[in-house]
Amino acid sequence: MLRQASTTLLFDTPGRGLFEITDPVSQFATSTGFESGLLTLFVRHTSASLLVQENADPLVRGDLERFFARLVPDGDALFRHRDEGPDDMPAHVRAALSVTQLSIPLVARRLALGTWQGVYLWEHRVKPHRREVAVHVIGS
Amino acid sequence: MLRQASTTLLFDTPGRGLFEITDPVSQFATSTGFESGLLTLFVRHTSASLLVQENADPLVRGDLERFFARLVPDGDALFRHRDEGPDDMPAHVRAALSVTQLSIPLVARRLALGTWQGVYLWEHRVKPHRREVAVHVIGS
Amino acid sequence: MLRQASTTLLFDTPGRGLFEITDPVSQFATSTGFESGLLTLFVRHTSASLLVQENADPLVRGDLERFFARLVPDGDALFRHRDEGPDDMPAHVRAALSVTQLSIPLVARRLALGTWQGVYLWEHRVKPHRREVAVHVIGS
Repeated sequence: MLRQASTTLLFDTPGRGLFEITDPVSQFATSTGFESGLLTLFVRHTSASLLVQENADPLVRGDLERFFARLVPDGDALFRHRDEGPDDMPAHVRAALSVTQLSIPLVARRLALGTWQGVYLWEHRVKPHRREVAVHVIGS
Repeated sequence: MLRQASTTLLFDTPGRGLFEITDPVSQFATSTGFESGLLTLFVRHTSASLLVQENADPLVRGDLERFFARLVPDGDALFRHRDEGPDDMPAHVRAALSVTQLSIPLVARRLALGTWQGVYLWEHRVKPHRREVAVHVIGS
Repeated sequence: MLRQASTTLLFDTPGRGLFEITDPVSQFATSTGFESGLLTLFVRHTSASLLVQENADPLVRGDLERFFARLVPDGDALFRHRDEGPDDMPAHVRAALSVTQLSIPLVARRLALGTWQGVYLWEHRVKPHRREVAVHVIGS
């Protein structure tokens, strides 16, 4: 018999960068008791996003940040929306280039992540922020 | 008891830019009568996409457009596929950089959108187009 | 009565580029016997991703590759993570700019793809790789 479960996870990010959330997300998936199913994460903000990335070499995360800092520079003269500072509009663009939502199958009571995959909340603002991630799981 | 519902929403976009579809999407979600669940949108085109973005300051949408116009210029000499004009291939690239599909949890009969989040259909072609968005909802 | 089904599809990619997987994905969807539902694909790697793109003119795929090769150049001096060569970190960045997961509604026993849409596994590494895609379908 299929059932569903949902919650909201809160994270205090330390500012711009990738913040791993694999453990709390996996723990909620396990708490449902579902053998198989589908878990969905949805970030309730427009200046943070989600990313599945390598959780082995930390250089990967540094390189990703430098690439996005070059691609979408803070304080770019192109941007008119600067209400919250030079990183305000770049945060929206970075969110648009990545994803607000992520679904992961649940197989044998575990998220079907590959060996090197971790789930990250990607903070795009320079300062720390409290972020809400809505979580939905359906399965049996 | 879990159930599902689906429909196709049609939108006539006025040409390139972000076209808010939060209201019709929310209305379909509400029409299912589901207290909780998961709604999925899927754009049936390769030159339009979906975006969750700020629906407060309209400058955000203008800045996003200018950023993508600079990143993926119309008429770029790099592109060979020009069957439908200088904005043809850039539209495909912009769609590849954003998302074709979006899922949003349904909580307490409402989409779990954050305070400042709106759901947008992103038209990447310069001229107006009729666009089809497949909608699926599962819940109870 | 809603039910779910899941599998893992294996693909041997010939190296960097778009590798169409519409047929095997559609075949698994059909094998469930579901009239309607939702199919989800999840790539279990951080250097390959998913893309819905035009399956008509092959120039589109070549243009996409050239755009991403220019945007995220192999061997870029910006990158420090080079364990597996000059295409290692660019593969992670390209995966971050596209999507690891894709859900498609199932309508009248078929994926709700538009006329010109194909589903592609996007290999970002230069050499051939074996890739695993977790598939989940829920429906009735």
